[in-house]
Amino acid sequence: MAIIVQKFGGSSVADTEKLFAVCKHITREFDQGNQVVVVVSAQGKTTDGLVKQIGEIAETPSQREYDVLLSTGEQITIAKLAMCLQELGYDAISYMGWQVPLITDGNHANARIEYIESKNIRADLDNGKIVIVTGFQGVDRQGNITTFGRGGSDTTAVALAAALNADKCEIYTDVDGIFSSDPRIITNVKKIETMCSDEMLELASLGAKVLHSRCVEIGKNYDVPIHVKSTFMEESCGTLIKNDRDNFEKLVISGIAKQDNNSRITVICDKILCEKKDSCQPYKVFKLLADHGVNVDIIVKSHDGTAETDISFSIESKELDKTLKVLKKYKQDIGAKKILHSDGLSKISVVGVGMVNTPGVAAITFEVLHNSGIDMHMISTSEIKISILVDADKANLAMQVLHDQFMS
Amino acid sequence: MAIIVQKFGGSSVADTEKLFAVCKHITREFDQGNQVVVVVSAQGKTTDGLVKQIGEIAETPSQREYDVLLSTGEQITIAKLAMCLQELGYDAISYMGWQVPLITDGNHANARIEYIESKNIRADLDNGKIVIVTGFQGVDRQGNITTFGRGGSDTTAVALAAALNADKCEIYTDVDGIFSSDPRIITNVKKIETMCSDEMLELASLGAKVLHSRCVEIGKNYDVPIHVKSTFMEESCGTLIKNDRDNFEKLVISGIAKQDNNSRITVICDKILCEKKDSCQPYKVFKLLADHGVNVDIIVKSHDGTAETDISFSIESKELDKTLKVLKKYKQDIGAKKILHSDGLSKISVVGVGMVNTPGVAAITFEVLHNSGIDMHMISTSEIKISILVDADKANLAMQVLHDQFMS
Repeated sequence: MAIIVQKFGGSSVADTEKLFAVCKHITREFDQGNQVVVVVSAQGKTTDGLVKQIGEIAETPSQREYDVLLSTGEQITIAKLAMCLQELGYDAISYMGWQVPLITDGNHANARIEYIESKNIRADLDNGKIVIVTGFQGVDRQGNITTFGRGGSDTTAVALAAALNADKCEIYTDVDGIFSSDPRIITNVKKIETMCSDEMLELASLGAKVLHSRCVEIGKNYDVPIHVKSTFMEESCGTLIKNDRDNFEKLVISGIAKQDNNSRITVICDKILCEKKDSCQPYKVFKLLADHGVNVDIIVKSHDGTAETDISFSIESKELDKTLKVLKKYKQDIGAKKILHSDGLSKISVVGVGMVNTPGVAAITFEVLHNSGIDMHMISTSEIKISILVDADKANLAMQVLHDQFMS
Repeated sequence: MAIIVQKFGGSSVADTEKLFAVCKHITREFDQGNQVVVVVSAQGKTTDGLVKQIGEIAETPSQREYDVLLSTGEQITIAKLAMCLQELGYDAISYMGWQVPLITDGNHANARIEYIESKNIRADLDNGKIVIVTGFQGVDRQGNITTFGRGGSDTTAVALAAALNADKCEIYTDVDGIFSSDPRIITNVKKIETMCSDEMLELASLGAKVLHSRCVEIGKNYDVPIHVKSTFMEESCGTLIKNDRDNFEKLVISGIAKQDNNSRITVICDKILCEKKDSCQPYKVFKLLADHGVNVDIIVKSHDGTAETDISFSIESKELDKTLKVLKKYKQDIGAKKILHSDGLSKISVVGVGMVNTPGVAAITFEVLHNSGIDMHMISTSEIKISILVDADKANLAMQVLHDQFMS
């Protein structure tokens, strides 16, 4: 008897009809003799509606109370889904995060899971019940409700699967798996049948919106196979994400992702000032930014030999104003002579485990972009990924030419 | 420093504007140096909306999941109200029933409070916080959410006041206290300034809709003064309900209440059959009805000397069909010869502690009704109450003439 964790997002459970449709996926696995745990999000746009109502009250509400309010969304879904399953003649029971309990740290609105007590759920499964758990929420050690931020329900599902030592975690979504790129931008996208966790991690963190990197990370660390499938297809093959790199078809490139709204900042340092004050060390710049809560993405440090030293890095555009303000305020301390910036950039990433064993992928990538008249503003590479910052208006073209080159 | 518990119902917290209006009552008491605990219901018609949504899924849903769903209503209110108070510069914290914890038995949808752990709330009050608690809900000893049924938020408030040994419990409502009768039916109703718990208990159980008898009972047992006030008046005198019978103004009659939709059933027994089978004992009839979940109200047993014995009793009309079916099925067992019934009756009740010391109230009541051409189908009296079943179409007239007699 296998234990299967299934997760259904907000659009999959948006109304009563859809709730009953979701029951088909649940009872199919249950009828085949499996133990099934279901994780659900809030129905449709419920969470957005609650956030809007908060806006009527306060601009910066207490994060604790924000979590109390938002957590009602999933609570409504679990009760309704349990009723639907019971109506179909199945024994089902709902759990809020605090009832599991699913213990988190105390970071309201962005909590991380610390521990899951799976005893009660196991007992219910052994008694033939289908167990339904709220996604996106837990409880801290003081008994306060916490929520998880973006991708929270996926994270709940994979973490529960890990705690239950489940055989797999199925993430149901509105597309039939992970595609080689965004079908709304690129023609001829391919569905990827199997993928390794590392590739998915790169894709997830680079803007592929199907899975959040937090849940892929847990899947990787606890060896939980994640199966991304379509809610709206009776038998969806989807994409299977597993830890094992070797057993996969050897695609050089498994995906091409895009992330819009990037900005680049370049700090040009005065070498004499720097030597005198022992400043202009990269660590000083990035410590300053970390202290002010700025998330830095790509970092490039170039030509160290001349009178000027450059440090360039990319950030999300929404953080540009704040970051510039901080850098200008502490200009003296970090020994900066000039601070340059450019906005309106997109990050294109080419990801694939096969890259490691295939020389020249970077060279081909740069050549293809050059031939299409696309400027590369920053480049960053890892073992299985190449990321390039390009002008936003050339980003879709860049994705298409790279997809044509590698995936066709 | 006094501890005050305030309760606001659904219409008092229906939208953001009203939530901020409610804050004025809370902060007024807090600013005067009191410790304030606030109990709230679900906003406006939220609970009705949730019940309607359940109707789309199941006719007889699991009571456990029903409670999980319904309890989200108050949860939304506590978070929003805490945010409102924080926005006004006050330190506020919300508690769900399970966070208090407010321990109940396991009777879903109709749970009774067993124990309230007040330690955390006391600590928060001592730290200068305003504490906001969900009405209507608690948690059983197995960690399941339970709700309380009708009047549940009032009950929560008075029970919390008892647990905290509070100085008083203020119940805010949309009228300015308890009136001598229903102002929608009777002209010249009087507001009652003070009232003893026993009178309120009789009025509450007899259909006066302002306070539920459960909460009055707790107030009586734990000696918590209950102050019923208007949400929508800045300084409402309202009605104060206290245990002490002696300190009250000596009104003979404090109120006249009406309860529609009553039915009367008469079981006529065959004396010979009864003697042979040792049946036709009242306990047999009422045990039968209790076993089938029928709540009986007034019971009258008359003339025992003839060949026929009558037992008459009243029930809510919605239980009439079920009750007749049960009685007919077990006709032989209870030794019944005939089963008669009449529907379309209303119960008029005249209540007042003063009645005990004022002879002739019953006589006057019956005379007034007789002179107005109102038939009395059943009569029941207690120390402080006279109830009469009359035809529904004469009920309002009965209330008016009795009110004119006793209250003007």
